[in-house]
Amino acid sequence: LADVARRAGVSVATVSKVLNGHDDVAAATRKRVEVVLGELGYRSRTSYRSAERRPSVLLLLGNSEAVDPYSASVLDGVLAEAERQDVSVTVSHVPTPRQVDPVRLAQEVVRGGHEGAVVVTPVFADSDLAYLIRRNIAVAMIDPVDVSHDEGVSVGATNWNGGLSGTQYLVSRGHRRIGFVSGPKDRLVARARLHGYRAALELAQIPFDPRLVRYGSFLVEDGYALGGELLDLDERPTAIFATSDSAALGVMAAARDRGMDVPGDVSVMGFDDTWVASYVVPPLTTVRQPLGEMGAEAVRAVLAQARGESLAVRRVELNTELIVRASVGPPNLLN
Amino acid sequence: LADVARRAGVSVATVSKVLNGHDDVAAATRKRVEVVLGELGYRSRTSYRSAERRPSVLLLLGNSEAVDPYSASVLDGVLAEAERQDVSVTVSHVPTPRQVDPVRLAQEVVRGGHEGAVVVTPVFADSDLAYLIRRNIAVAMIDPVDVSHDEGVSVGATNWNGGLSGTQYLVSRGHRRIGFVSGPKDRLVARARLHGYRAALELAQIPFDPRLVRYGSFLVEDGYALGGELLDLDERPTAIFATSDSAALGVMAAARDRGMDVPGDVSVMGFDDTWVASYVVPPLTTVRQPLGEMGAEAVRAVLAQARGESLAVRRVELNTELIVRASVGPPNLLN
Repeated sequence: LADVARRAGVSVATVSKVLNGHDDVAAATRKRVEVVLGELGYRSRTSYRSAERRPSVLLLLGNSEAVDPYSASVLDGVLAEAERQDVSVTVSHVPTPRQVDPVRLAQEVVRGGHEGAVVVTPVFADSDLAYLIRRNIAVAMIDPVDVSHDEGVSVGATNWNGGLSGTQYLVSRGHRRIGFVSGPKDRLVARARLHGYRAALELAQIPFDPRLVRYGSFLVEDGYALGGELLDLDERPTAIFATSDSAALGVMAAARDRGMDVPGDVSVMGFDDTWVASYVVPPLTTVRQPLGEMGAEAVRAVLAQARGESLAVRRVELNTELIVRASVGPPNLLN
Repeated sequence: LADVARRAGVSVATVSKVLNGHDDVAAATRKRVEVVLGELGYRSRTSYRSAERRPSVLLLLGNSEAVDPYSASVLDGVLAEAERQDVSVTVSHVPTPRQVDPVRLAQEVVRGGHEGAVVVTPVFADSDLAYLIRRNIAVAMIDPVDVSHDEGVSVGATNWNGGLSGTQYLVSRGHRRIGFVSGPKDRLVARARLHGYRAALELAQIPFDPRLVRYGSFLVEDGYALGGELLDLDERPTAIFATSDSAALGVMAAARDRGMDVPGDVSVMGFDDTWVASYVVPPLTTVRQPLGEMGAEAVRAVLAQARGESLAVRRVELNTELIVRASVGPPNLLN
């Protein structure tokens, strides 16, 4: 060390700080020391070992094939909050269909030395969750399929309100025949949005027509297929509420393939307000859910549990908000 | 343990296997043992500690604000390959502007116990890279700004060919006044694509007009602003080649805001073929680069270096491919 210190023109203490990865060395000084270390053939990887490893959280994305805009938005929020808390994030995919094996999850958390896991849109049985709680595995779920289990910690959006306000906006523009491209029948968020839609119809005294509702998986392919089915009905809807932006993009593509203009021939409403919403043509009128904030909140909930804090609230719902752009117009009653 | 084994109706060895997280226990049996463990108030987190931690790689995404479709596609490939290799992935953002601090990177890799790092579109100085190599930090770069340094391991696409073939396709449809929304001037991939564009013009004996070239950052906002500038020219281009899908979306939005139809009034070509390309309206004609494959290749390169293998090839370029959809048509010479 003395040799390095002499050549770099710094104290031995400074060399030692650099080797130990301390931050209180000026960048230029550190660089000078590093250069000398390199010249002396210093190659050890162990120099930083004494420094403590950053804590970490595991993020399980609920989509096994691709990082869609929904997951990307959640990931953004998780990464930003982790950075604020000086925590690192390990990302994994949950195998389709979102069914989390609690034993594997527990293994991954403990083996990886993680504080806990943020799990996006998982399928958990009550017994699975109980298993994790018994094992003291800190978990925060984002929009789990089912939140019947009281014990789990979860973050979501006000989906019912979102379904209500989106549908009410369509009604306010004059639509009465409104198609609904839903998420999976068994998913809580999908049910909540569908019930919001039904409530808005009731308030406007529009009879509910089950033929106008289709169930998919929130993906663009489903929007395309199910939106196409709705547009091919003899008495087709004048507006379609697709309950994800991705599905709304699919509906717009289906309209285009049929030579229909959006919103001239059919209005389209989305859900999520991911980045694509403002850049598709026409820009998408949609119900915003604060996905980044939901990711950040989930990280905070995991870390709080890992610290042994008892959470005052085990289910947090963040506000949805109607974002008006250009994909919704008055109904075209001539079609 | 004997008590647990008796209650669960299994051998003590089986209970021990479950506690140690071994995989060779039937799921139903494991569950039964877990239930008994839970009933007995077994809450230790340490039961899996003896099992080995999975190896991991660090993924540094080169965008500090958001996971864009480009990064999402790379992440998909990294996660898929990591799963095949039974490796976990820790994700971090590089602070803007993509400048990687090699000391921090080395600290993060060593402290986190990672095999090495995949770094997406980084800015590295030669000396930074030399620093990492001296420290035996395995790094694979995806589309670094500069690959002048021979020693670094990097993965990219055949960007020059992509710029060439995209432009040649526009020429083949009759365009001669072709705008070009480039990435940053100092980025290698951007330069390569621009030179491909210039080569195609030369081959078609179309004079190069620098007013038709704008430099941005591949983001949707830049496509919108720079595409707008091109569309506002007195003699505006009949086609615009935006060298990312995101920028192409921005150009399409700028056209829409000016009451112009794509491709009726102006043709738009993208680059990347991220998932959005096939679902925007009109579907985007674009140059595909295999981003997922590039991510997978980078993971393999990191793991090979970490195993001490010497790589036969330090720079891998994967093929680009023209994908024809609907956003390019013949020029509208009346405008």
